[in-house]
Amino acid sequence: MSVPAITDVLTGKHPVGEPITVQGWIRTRRDSKAGISFLAIHDGSCFDPIQAVVPNDLENYQNDVLKLTTGSSVKVTGTLVESQGKGQSFEIQATRVEVLGLVDDPDTYPMAAKRHSIEFLREQAHLRPRTNIGGAVTRVRNTLAQAVHRFMHEKGYYWISTPLITGSDCEGAGEMFRVSTLDMENLPRDDKGAIDYGQDFFGKETFLTVSGQLNVETYCCALSKVYTFGPTFRAENSNTSRHLAEFWMVEPEIAFADLGDAATLAEEMLRYVFKAVLEERADDMAFFQQRVDKTVIERLESVVKSEFVRMDYTDAITILQNCGKKFENPVSWGVDLNSEHERYLAEEHVGGPVVLQNYPKDIKSFYMRLNDDGKTVAAMDILAPGIGEIIGGSQREERLDVLDNRLAEMGLDKEDYSWYRDLRRYGTVPHSGFGLGFERLVAYATGIANVRDVIPFPRTPNSASF
Amino acid sequence: MSVPAITDVLTGKHPVGEPITVQGWIRTRRDSKAGISFLAIHDGSCFDPIQAVVPNDLENYQNDVLKLTTGSSVKVTGTLVESQGKGQSFEIQATRVEVLGLVDDPDTYPMAAKRHSIEFLREQAHLRPRTNIGGAVTRVRNTLAQAVHRFMHEKGYYWISTPLITGSDCEGAGEMFRVSTLDMENLPRDDKGAIDYGQDFFGKETFLTVSGQLNVETYCCALSKVYTFGPTFRAENSNTSRHLAEFWMVEPEIAFADLGDAATLAEEMLRYVFKAVLEERADDMAFFQQRVDKTVIERLESVVKSEFVRMDYTDAITILQNCGKKFENPVSWGVDLNSEHERYLAEEHVGGPVVLQNYPKDIKSFYMRLNDDGKTVAAMDILAPGIGEIIGGSQREERLDVLDNRLAEMGLDKEDYSWYRDLRRYGTVPHSGFGLGFERLVAYATGIANVRDVIPFPRTPNSASF
Repeated sequence: MSVPAITDVLTGKHPVGEPITVQGWIRTRRDSKAGISFLAIHDGSCFDPIQAVVPNDLENYQNDVLKLTTGSSVKVTGTLVESQGKGQSFEIQATRVEVLGLVDDPDTYPMAAKRHSIEFLREQAHLRPRTNIGGAVTRVRNTLAQAVHRFMHEKGYYWISTPLITGSDCEGAGEMFRVSTLDMENLPRDDKGAIDYGQDFFGKETFLTVSGQLNVETYCCALSKVYTFGPTFRAENSNTSRHLAEFWMVEPEIAFADLGDAATLAEEMLRYVFKAVLEERADDMAFFQQRVDKTVIERLESVVKSEFVRMDYTDAITILQNCGKKFENPVSWGVDLNSEHERYLAEEHVGGPVVLQNYPKDIKSFYMRLNDDGKTVAAMDILAPGIGEIIGGSQREERLDVLDNRLAEMGLDKEDYSWYRDLRRYGTVPHSGFGLGFERLVAYATGIANVRDVIPFPRTPNSASF
Repeated sequence: MSVPAITDVLTGKHPVGEPITVQGWIRTRRDSKAGISFLAIHDGSCFDPIQAVVPNDLENYQNDVLKLTTGSSVKVTGTLVESQGKGQSFEIQATRVEVLGLVDDPDTYPMAAKRHSIEFLREQAHLRPRTNIGGAVTRVRNTLAQAVHRFMHEKGYYWISTPLITGSDCEGAGEMFRVSTLDMENLPRDDKGAIDYGQDFFGKETFLTVSGQLNVETYCCALSKVYTFGPTFRAENSNTSRHLAEFWMVEPEIAFADLGDAATLAEEMLRYVFKAVLEERADDMAFFQQRVDKTVIERLESVVKSEFVRMDYTDAITILQNCGKKFENPVSWGVDLNSEHERYLAEEHVGGPVVLQNYPKDIKSFYMRLNDDGKTVAAMDILAPGIGEIIGGSQREERLDVLDNRLAEMGLDKEDYSWYRDLRRYGTVPHSGFGLGFERLVAYATGIANVRDVIPFPRTPNSASF
């Protein structure tokens, strides 16, 4: 434990000329004709490995050092010296190499030192963090998560852990996973022959939540500035590069705030977290730029610098109708926009992120605040070039009578929302919030095309391995 | 949104003598005989409300101000002045009071200004954050969570989001929630008549995880220092003050580390997060000290200052056998310790937190590292006075042959653990980690006796409201 992380050694935090010990895994071993071996050792603390130069007069050179292959674990002791080679700051003149673990049958080791397809790595989700891309994604994902918490904390927001198991399908979306401990082979029945969920663990039917929003609103209406950052679930049979059955969401909720305030917070947050990635993970971003997406650094820099364009849905429809482009799905006022429309607006019309706002009420949720025109609601989507919708938010309907009308219009029973209605009965306040899909954020920041490759163990239809 | 948080106003961040607007909820209204009303307004940003002094010559004094009751929401404008009253730093001489929302039927408002039992508040989980205790718990919980992430980040650990939905019951504990989208009224059957989970969402039986440990070990064996901080689930029918069906866990995992290293990290983490609470939430801690537990501040200060005593299980058994105290459950080498034993050790014998280590292998999990005596494993529990076990951890068995023997001894099929075994086949390293139950941590820090009162919406047997 007193052994330094390789990132600290490579960034000059260890004195040159002094003894040093590092621990890690072999990325590559190269043997020179002069009888010297070069070990590239990584420990995951940064993108680069450190080089250890191993002379062949070590007593275990033949028996141990020459057996090291990619993935073997070692403890190397020696002297830290400035590196003569290009691209490396420091290296170790090794005086001792202790093998901790070899690789069982190196020829079949799935993570052998060569380029693997991203699909193959997905099947080896337990080993892929050992690769360059797996390590880089993990570090950038961590930086984004830490930056989200730090941003919120600095702004005075409190983190709220909303429940995952819920008795209500509040969004009315319906595509939820059931949570149960009933014996499936002997389901209890009530006297009418229906399944008796009264005997289930929670005494009723329960599901995995699709959003923490309604719950976090209760804390917003007490602590003013709050956010969730936790897992959410959709039992949607979507086999796309943008969907996961289990994913993480960030959901801030702001009291005394309108839709514009929520859009401003979203914009500030994206700028803050991308700046953190550019500053803290220059090593990993250089890799993504080189191997995954040539424009990825430029794209993040542009978000950090530019103001987001705000555009009304109604204006967007006019733009799409008059742009002269032929879309697969025809556009008219009232339709929900498809990915092709969203990408045209962000990528071609604006050339940057767009806050699209004030959507027709009929394509949005009951809790969104009705605008004075009676036709639209104070909802927004933030569309980013290359990925489409990354954030969805709204001002919430704080007027009890309007909320009740909306519930009735949508055929929802207001008794099911009694606790949500209480927030409007007792000291109601204007409030707004949004949801950010965390995996879409990581995909956007790294240039990786599929959200399955930016979460450690993806859950998708027919797949819950590991 | 340009309105300041009340915490900033009370701590002197707003210039005295200048105009000011605040927004929040009425805690109390008091009317003097002289025709002045005093409003205590809180916005959740800190424990204290700010006082607004409202003269009766405001044009809406009769119609609005005199209707304000506890829980009403207001926007108050005036001048910030130094307070003449005791205990308050600043107050507002109001020139305008705008009512945002009244309380529907104040006589039945559940959060009226009086002391409520903690059990009553639990039934009103959507409104309890508006109370003194609800707000204080939320802020302390937030400080602890932020401090956990900050501590880990500063130490170079990467946050890993391990999956919640899992196909494996890796701990062998068995008490798991099933996750399914099968139609319960029309369960698909295979040709042998058994339920065909092949038709379920993930193509097999799936459950909610009981721990992220086995998954996070895969990232530890690539990035060296990692941790999880996420929800975990136990379908245990435990109606105690220490158990929840859904709770949050922090699980660090350290490569190249033994049990002692894990204990040191746990100790440093507890010290760090309690120091953060004492420094950042002095207001809320003063409240807990006064209303909940007279010793709570002292207890946290003592953890911050003292070294944890480390004690072998075997020595603990001797101590318990010779202490002259009569226990309900008799003590002998090999038994699992009960709460009465743990509390005796922490509260009476040591008088502070104890790291109890090297337990008999037969009462511990298969993945814990076998000690050289062949009888005990490198496991630890950290016991805290007043709450008992708060952390459980171990060094993990990194030797494939020993691990396989343990799996066989415990009747587990090694095929089910193939990906876990791969970590031992490919560059295995010594590694250790622990799990910290986050709600137990919040309970310990606040002095609150029941974990149901330190999580926003508790899930327990027969209860999943809101």
